[in-house]
Formats: sequence, structure tokens, C-alpha cells
Amino acid sequence: MSEATNAYVESNQTRFLEELKEFLRIPSVSTLPEHFPDVHRAAQFVGDHMKSAGLENIEIVATEKHPLVYADWLHAPGKPTVLCYGHYDVQPPDPLNEWITPPFEPTLRNGNIYARGSADDKGQMYMQIKAVEALLAVNKTLPVNLKFLIEGEEEVGSESVAKFVAESPAKLKADVALVSDTELFAEGLPTLCVGLRGLIYTEIEARGPSRDLHSGMYGGAAPNAVFGLVELLAKLKDKNGVIQIPGMYDDVTPPTAAEQHSWATLPFDEADFLKNEVGSKCLTGELGRTVLERTWARPTLEVHGIAGGFTGAGAKTVIPAKATAKVSMRMVPDQDPDKIIAAYKKFVADNTPAGIQTEVRILSAGPAISVNPEHHAIEVAAQAFSDILGKETVFIRSGGSIPIVGDFAKYLGIPTILMGFGLPDDGLHSPNEKYKLANYYAGIKTIAHFFEKYGA
Amino acid sequence: MSEATNAYVESNQTRFLEELKEFLRIPSVSTLPEHFPDVHRAAQFVGDHMKSAGLENIEIVATEKHPLVYADWLHAPGKPTVLCYGHYDVQPPDPLNEWITPPFEPTLRNGNIYARGSADDKGQMYMQIKAVEALLAVNKTLPVNLKFLIEGEEEVGSESVAKFVAESPAKLKADVALVSDTELFAEGLPTLCVGLRGLIYTEIEARGPSRDLHSGMYGGAAPNAVFGLVELLAKLKDKNGVIQIPGMYDDVTPPTAAEQHSWATLPFDEADFLKNEVGSKCLTGELGRTVLERTWARPTLEVHGIAGGFTGAGAKTVIPAKATAKVSMRMVPDQDPDKIIAAYKKFVADNTPAGIQTEVRILSAGPAISVNPEHHAIEVAAQAFSDILGKETVFIRSGGSIPIVGDFAKYLGIPTILMGFGLPDDGLHSPNEKYKLANYYAGIKTIAHFFEKYGA
Repeated sequence: MSEATNAYVESNQTRFLEELKEFLRIPSVSTLPEHFPDVHRAAQFVGDHMKSAGLENIEIVATEKHPLVYADWLHAPGKPTVLCYGHYDVQPPDPLNEWITPPFEPTLRNGNIYARGSADDKGQMYMQIKAVEALLAVNKTLPVNLKFLIEGEEEVGSESVAKFVAESPAKLKADVALVSDTELFAEGLPTLCVGLRGLIYTEIEARGPSRDLHSGMYGGAAPNAVFGLVELLAKLKDKNGVIQIPGMYDDVTPPTAAEQHSWATLPFDEADFLKNEVGSKCLTGELGRTVLERTWARPTLEVHGIAGGFTGAGAKTVIPAKATAKVSMRMVPDQDPDKIIAAYKKFVADNTPAGIQTEVRILSAGPAISVNPEHHAIEVAAQAFSDILGKETVFIRSGGSIPIVGDFAKYLGIPTILMGFGLPDDGLHSPNEKYKLANYYAGIKTIAHFFEKYGA
Repeated sequence: MSEATNAYVESNQTRFLEELKEFLRIPSVSTLPEHFPDVHRAAQFVGDHMKSAGLENIEIVATEKHPLVYADWLHAPGKPTVLCYGHYDVQPPDPLNEWITPPFEPTLRNGNIYARGSADDKGQMYMQIKAVEALLAVNKTLPVNLKFLIEGEEEVGSESVAKFVAESPAKLKADVALVSDTELFAEGLPTLCVGLRGLIYTEIEARGPSRDLHSGMYGGAAPNAVFGLVELLAKLKDKNGVIQIPGMYDDVTPPTAAEQHSWATLPFDEADFLKNEVGSKCLTGELGRTVLERTWARPTLEVHGIAGGFTGAGAKTVIPAKATAKVSMRMVPDQDPDKIIAAYKKFVADNTPAGIQTEVRILSAGPAISVNPEHHAIEVAAQAFSDILGKETVFIRSGGSIPIVGDFAKYLGIPTILMGFGLPDDGLHSPNEKYKLANYYAGIKTIAHFFEKYGA
């Protein structure tokens, strides 16, 4: 581990933080059309700062939706090439009124920086750029070849980057990908994620009467779109969260005995998880399975939002004509998204109540991912991580989904190192998202150290 | 029937229509705080036009919410007194984008006037005032004593008028009440409504995790407030609309054999009702009961609206912390609202899923009403109606709820004539609400004729 690089990071902390704050002030919400100009501004910010860090061949690549940012540094012949990936787009900040400080005015409290995107993923992605800056400033060269591919559609399905990866295998050729968009299993515990769940995101629209009807005149004879949708959704899972779609569990590969053993030794406190992370009356889910198995290695189905009928203050006695719900399914190895989508659509059609018409729209779909922890680059990353944090690296999975990792495997034939520095209570996608400042700086050092060891 | 009165109505049609349009332009939506000033303007409009019609002792009565408008004319000693009731408040107009012309810009098409409140109830209530004007203009006196009580909270539970009626039995003393807020069973068919369902309107709020959670990280272990609410709501009814709350049907009095026989002779075309009124794939509801029985004489439960989680465009993978639904129950004679509320609250508590907390809020509650069709005033009204429209009057019920009718019975000891001129396809509470102009003018004549016959 290079003392000079670490010293550079330490002496530039204040500036690294100010730059991150500037980045976080851009409300680059990729799903909301009113923020599309901000998404473009964020892409430009990334390109500008790649350039000043010393990366070359910066390109802002136009796509059908949000731009990609490409850059490289390829002056280490005979050394491996790392493809660095991250995303500059963020989730919507709502519900706005639950933020203690505004989502796009980054604020420091208790050693954390609070802002939408601080942990997911601007703060983490920016560490990669700052690691390059540190190494080049200290050594005037890099120990490995680097390619950067930063996207702006991660929160809306990563379609453009998937297309770009599929169409540009030569340009993106590398030995391994490095993604910093995951979290430490616990404070100070170096963690590599070797499994991600897949995601199918859908909308269901239900229609009943041709217009909203008076519930006095028609109640008892006319179908109600909201109630019809409610009846349908309630059939999707049983009370323990077991998905009722036929065939849903047919292709589920259970975790290995070694994984199960390893997970049992992780510092996981279910009572603390309930109290400080979830905050509900009790946990829920499939009986006889641990929380880690339920969230990492089991398919799940969630309703993310529902809307229909009159929802203002007071009373309105309508039988609603229309209602919609957003429904997703997380998949595990070796579930096939196409097969699951077909079964889901059939289930919705078969269980649509009398008088109701339903339509299913698929917004995105990507399979689960697993990475071999014995791959050389993963082993080097694990060692670099241990060197900086001073503890043995653990291998975990995540219940989340990073579709690009599947694309790197499929089109470039390379594994991905999921080396992230978030913490379990960072509040991704929630109000008051935060990122721990100490992890931001440790992350820059760890990434630089990984490049050094991998190039050695 | 007085030719002079009818001639007066006919020669003043244009002005009567212009006045109604002015009234309809006031967006007096009683449930939306931003429209409270409009609600007050509508009350003032009513008072001003009562005065110019010749009514006396006009009072705009302040209440805890929206004003009442009182007026009277008491110069017919020895003659009966009629208490005229109506409401000047309206339902919210949403969904706004489904209106062909703006809801508060009354527009004539095909012999109808389109506007929110045209049929429910401004157009109908205003007929009573115009009947008074016509009689006084022609005769310089009235055949009966009249009291007017017009309210602005009918669409939000009628709390203030209920309090006023309970506290003012001497002031409101009358022989019968006249309410014009119902409809003809069919075009041209004189119809008196002798039964109304009661209404309990509630909100259910469900809470799961303490904040919105990432569905990747927590899906499989954390409760979902939207799904928990969906599970609960789905249990309230079976697939045929039978309410599952224990005891719900214990006190239901079935319609008499005479009523059932009479209803079977009404010109009701189920196929037309489905196609031109409901517009869904099929009708729904309890097996083995006619549409009229289901909507007039059976309790029903509806979800009027539901909201929770992310409902914008695109995708957001949250497990929502909170969700709410608006749920009402319609009651028939002799169901007790307090007993039903207690059973409903217990059902919600008993069926709230693990990990979810629910709260039930009761927004309003009023029992079902029935009127004896053999009461003298009802018989006179039926005859007046037949005289003007030229057909035998039919006696029906309505599935809707007019809570004030129960208060008139309870506190004033008087029956209510439900003599309305709406049509089944008027679209009350829906976009493109309309009122047939011919019925507006016929209604003025019928009400004047009823006063004449009742005073004779």
C-alpha cells in the first residue's frame, strides 16, 4: 500500500468533499422528465472531472435517453485492464417532507454527508475518479490500464448502457470490471459482493366502469377498479410472502452449504436490523429461512406504489374507473426472466376479477448475477480491501440488482468486482440518504491500492 | 294545475337558465379547502336569489364549516308548511382531464346543461326557488307556508345542518320536507323515492417500516404498507361482493313482497344499464339478487380511493412505509351505524397483517331511511307529478344517501318527499355531469303545482 498515495488523499480531503457536494447538488433524477436537463448536467460534470483527474479520450455518448460518459487511460502495456463502472443518476427524492435537510443540498451531520445519491451512487462512483487522480498525481502514471463507463439510467433499467455494452465489446475489452455501488456488511468490515438478485419491474393497470360512478347509485352492481386491483394483488403472495405464481420457485438454486455456513458467521443482529433499519412491528417473510437467505437468495415480489380513485382530503363517494400499481419481482440464480414474465402475465390474466380488465406493462427485466470468489482479480481486490481496513474480507450477496453486471458477463466475458463502501443504514432510495465521509476517503485509498496490487 | 304559473315559467326560461349557469360557475367544492371561499360565494348567491324570488327572513347561518341558508314565507295561516331542502355544495370535479368542457363553465349540448353540480344538486335545488318566484309573480301569494334550509356540506357528511336541525325544531317546524336531489327512474316517468341507503365513510391508514425501504435490500424481510393494506382490503368482500365483516347482514330488513313486485315492473333494462351507464365488461355483485335489489336494498362496501408508495412515471424500487384507502359502507333499513362501525373496526384490527399497523378514521355515518308512500303529502306529490308529466308516479328506492332525511324524521318528526328530476345517466360525482334542461323547467312547474295542490 503506497504511503504517498494515501498521503495525497488525506491532504486533499477538503477539496474531494467540496467536489462531491457540487456533484450532489445536481438533481439528476433519471425517471422524472422535468429533471432530464439536470441528468445531462451531471454527465457533463463527470466528464469534466474525469479530464481534470487525468483520464483521456473523454466522450459524452448520446443515447436514446440519458448520456453515457466514457474515458480511458491505456498506457500500461502488458498490464491488465480494469473497466470502471458507476452511475450518476439518482432516485426521486420523494417523500420530500421527510427529509431533515433538502435532498439536493448536501449537508454534513455526525460524520456523514446527507443527500440523494450520496451513497447511491455518486459518492461511490466519484471515488474511482479520485483514485485515478491520486495515483497520477503521485506517480505520473497508472499501474493498470483503465476504461471508465459511467451511465445515467441505472435507476430506470440501464437500457442504453446495456445496448452500448452489447454493441461495443472491442472498445470495452477488459480483464475485469470494478463497480462501487454496494455496501460493507458492517461498519469497518471489508466486503465483496458476489451475488445480486435480478429484477423484473412492471405496472398493472386495472379498468372497471367506463367512468367513475356514484357509489350510492351503482354500489352492489358495478365493478370497482381499485377493489379489483386489490383483489388481484392480494393473490400474488400468501401471508408469509410466498409468491403464488405457478412455477415461480422451479428454477431457484439454493445457496451452497459453504455460503450458508459463511453467512451464519456474519455479524448480523436481527433485533437491531428490525429496530434500526426496518422500524416495523416485526419482520415478515418465508418461514424457516434466515433474513439473509430471504433477502439474498429467495425470489420476492413487492408492490412499490398504488394509485386509484379519490385520494384527496375528505370524502368522495366514487366507484373508480381505473387503478394502477407498480409491482416488481426479484429473482435469484438460475431463474429466467422471460419465463417468470410469462408466468406472471398468465397469473394476472387468470386472477383478474369479473368485470375488470387488466393490462401488464414490463418496464425492465434483468437476471440474477453470481461471481466466482476464487477469480484472481477478486482475490486481489479482497486482499487490497483487507490491507486498508485491517480486517479479513467477507463475501456476501446483495438482494439488490445491478443489471450491468450481467451485461459485462454476457457481452464482455468478464467478472465484476463489487467493491462498495456504503453502510446498511445509508437509506438508499429513502429520505435522508447518507454516505459516511470516512468511507468515502477509505474507498478512494482502497481503489487506488487495488489498482497497484492488480498491476504488480 | 295553473296555466298562468306554467306560462310564467315558460316565458322566463331563458333567464332561469342564465341564473342557473351563473350559480354553476361557482366551484363550491365543499371538501377542498382551496374552494372554501367559493362555497361561501355560493351560499350568498342562494340567499340573494331567495330574496329576489320573494322569500323573507333570509339568513346566512354561520356554522363550524360551511354556512346554511335559511328563508321562509309564512303568510298562509291554516295551510300546511313545507320545509324545502337542497344543497349548494358540489363534489370535486376530478379527474379533470375527462371533462369534455370545463366542469365550472356550464355548456349546453343536446338539450342538457353540462357542469359539476348541474344535477347534484344546484340545478334541482334552484327549481324550488324558481317555483316560489313563479307562484308569487302570478298570484302575489303562496298556497302553503314555506321554510327553506339550504346547506353547503351535503357532499361531506352534512354535519352542520344535522346540528342545526337537532337544535332548531321550533324554527323548522313543518308538516313535510321537500327534497329535490334524486332522479326519475326513466325519462318522463314521474318517480318518488321512498328509501335511501345509509352511509359510513372511513379512511384506513396502514404503516409498515418506519421509512420507505429499498426493495432489493429489504424485500423478503420487511413488511410493505401498500401490500399489507391490499391484503386487508381484499378480505373485506368475497368475489361476489358479499361483505365478510361478521354480523354485517344480521339486521338487514329485506324489501317487502309488494316492493319486489313493483320493482319487477319498472322499465329496467340490465343490458342497457351495463352498456350505457356502467360501461364495464359485466355487472358484479351478490348472486341471485336483481340489480335493483343489490343497489337499493343490500349493504355494500366500496373502496373509493387508494394511495401509497411511488406512483409517478417510471420505476422506483421502494417498500412503502405508508398507504391509505378510503372505504365506505352503504346500509339498508334497519342496520345500526354504530354497530356496523364497531364490527368494521374489529374486522380491520383482526385482519391487519403481521408487521403492519392500521388506524381507522370515521369521516361520517348516517343510517338508511324509508318513507311511507301512503302519507297524505306523498300522495299529493305523486298526483302533482303525474299531472305534469302525464304518467302514473312510481315509487322507488335509491342506493344513495341523503343523511338530512333521517334528521328531519328524528328531530322534526316529519316525512320527506324525495321528488327529483335527474336522470340515471346524469353522471353525478363523475366527469361530464349533466342535467336535462326540459327536466329543469318541468321540475319548476311540478314543484309549484305540488304547492298548489297541497295547499288546496
